[in-house]
Amino acid sequence: MNGADFPAWMATIQQRTEAALAALLPDAGIAPARLHGAMRYAVLDGGKRVRPLLVHAAGQLADAPPERLDKVACAVELIHAYSLVHDDLPCMDDDVLRRGKPTVHVEYDEATALLVGDALQALAFQSLAEAPLCDDPAGQLEMITQLARAAGSRGMAGGQAIDLESVGKPLTREELEYMHIHKTGALIRASVLLGTQCGKPLAPAEADRLDRYGKLVGLLFQVVDDILDAGADTATLGKTAGKDADHNKPTYVTLLGLTEARALAESLLADARQTVAALGPRACRLDELATFIVHRKF
Amino acid sequence: MNGADFPAWMATIQQRTEAALAALLPDAGIAPARLHGAMRYAVLDGGKRVRPLLVHAAGQLADAPPERLDKVACAVELIHAYSLVHDDLPCMDDDVLRRGKPTVHVEYDEATALLVGDALQALAFQSLAEAPLCDDPAGQLEMITQLARAAGSRGMAGGQAIDLESVGKPLTREELEYMHIHKTGALIRASVLLGTQCGKPLAPAEADRLDRYGKLVGLLFQVVDDILDAGADTATLGKTAGKDADHNKPTYVTLLGLTEARALAESLLADARQTVAALGPRACRLDELATFIVHRKF
Repeated sequence: MNGADFPAWMATIQQRTEAALAALLPDAGIAPARLHGAMRYAVLDGGKRVRPLLVHAAGQLADAPPERLDKVACAVELIHAYSLVHDDLPCMDDDVLRRGKPTVHVEYDEATALLVGDALQALAFQSLAEAPLCDDPAGQLEMITQLARAAGSRGMAGGQAIDLESVGKPLTREELEYMHIHKTGALIRASVLLGTQCGKPLAPAEADRLDRYGKLVGLLFQVVDDILDAGADTATLGKTAGKDADHNKPTYVTLLGLTEARALAESLLADARQTVAALGPRACRLDELATFIVHRKF
Repeated sequence: MNGADFPAWMATIQQRTEAALAALLPDAGIAPARLHGAMRYAVLDGGKRVRPLLVHAAGQLADAPPERLDKVACAVELIHAYSLVHDDLPCMDDDVLRRGKPTVHVEYDEATALLVGDALQALAFQSLAEAPLCDDPAGQLEMITQLARAAGSRGMAGGQAIDLESVGKPLTREELEYMHIHKTGALIRASVLLGTQCGKPLAPAEADRLDRYGKLVGLLFQVVDDILDAGADTATLGKTAGKDADHNKPTYVTLLGLTEARALAESLLADARQTVAALGPRACRLDELATFIVHRKF
């Protein structure tokens, strides 16, 4: 895979992730058909698949078999997809547009959207447990523990709770960072770490670098998201633009201003690239992915 | 434990389950405090703990260490608790009372209740992955797969989707049974099977009997629930009584009438007791539990 140009590599991973998700999700003809149709609607044919890209890029570092990485990619993407479905519900962000399509509760109904999210979370853990992903099954149990922690009350779900509490409140930069480390960062960091765990063990210094990269990219992703939300229009974004400001939610742009938020993104990017530079040519996709995350337009 | 009378055994298991859940759930002082407080509110100090009782009763058959069974008991009870929190939401059953207390979205708010359910599901899988529960880690991965299937779109969440679709529709007895096999039965059956998997392997014929018992008890539980819902008052039940009829939901009582529903419960009980009788004295708790489920008052 190394040597192929980055856009081609990215397209390959996106395609194989789409195929793996399509195979894992129950067919829309299987009962309960409405639920399965809605699950497929929520997950397939949309999104940049940033977390699966990180899984595969990190897995390359450890010579992990791509078939194993597909299972991990599905698991993290299903957790991400379920969080979007629940986040869009009227009692949360009350959003009607996601990935350029009506949100699940608009296309179906609220109760179905609730169950879609619940069932996608269960399917994520199934994907991580039902086939061998490590040479050592005990290592695979550790991977499941990591995903559960990253998704749970001290990870992603906890970050969303902090987000809820912070609406309309002035936050310091430290508080904003604390929120994003949980809400977005935990799952992105887990994507990177889980990818390498499907392959040969890394040296402790390499693992430390990778973990640092995962943390930096998680934060980077959110800073860029805030910049895009402030500047883009809804058609480009595929989701409702400017909604953070409408909801009176603190963002890096409202806190730092656009210029300083952009400078922060560039500085985090430089740090992330430097962190993986020492890992050698096998880390090239991690380097390119960080750059892609900053320069994406949606 | 054998030889102690059943109520004392039940109280012991309920107490150790309560202690295990209290230790597993993050302290309400840990951030995000509101979410953690709401998670504890949803899970602790309530419920008959039928699924944990089944885990321990089945575990006895396989000489499973009680400390392992506590972890499994927490996992199935957390899945059950999350499903109640989401089921009570306005977009689902819209219920205000559960286990004699205001439901989570009434005591807190809808968004918090949504996140409580999401975080409890993640914690359930964490409980099943983070400590050794089988002599063979590969067996533990199978246990996680089983729980994921029992909780997901072809298990509990799928059963709830079928329930949603069936409101106001005439169902045949076969369709009603199909719904309950998924909605309630899948997790009860999983509780029984997961309990034995923490211990010594059962002979195939024993495992088949146990699986049959799990299926019968799952159905039995629902038939009795329908009978209680039709006859009890809200104070006795600890949740809103008569809500199935109010919601125009088909139940065994509306379908068969009270007398025939009671006869069905007694017939399923006799079948369940006969099924475990051949497993010898170590199965006594399974026998007693089935009887308890039929003769409970709430």
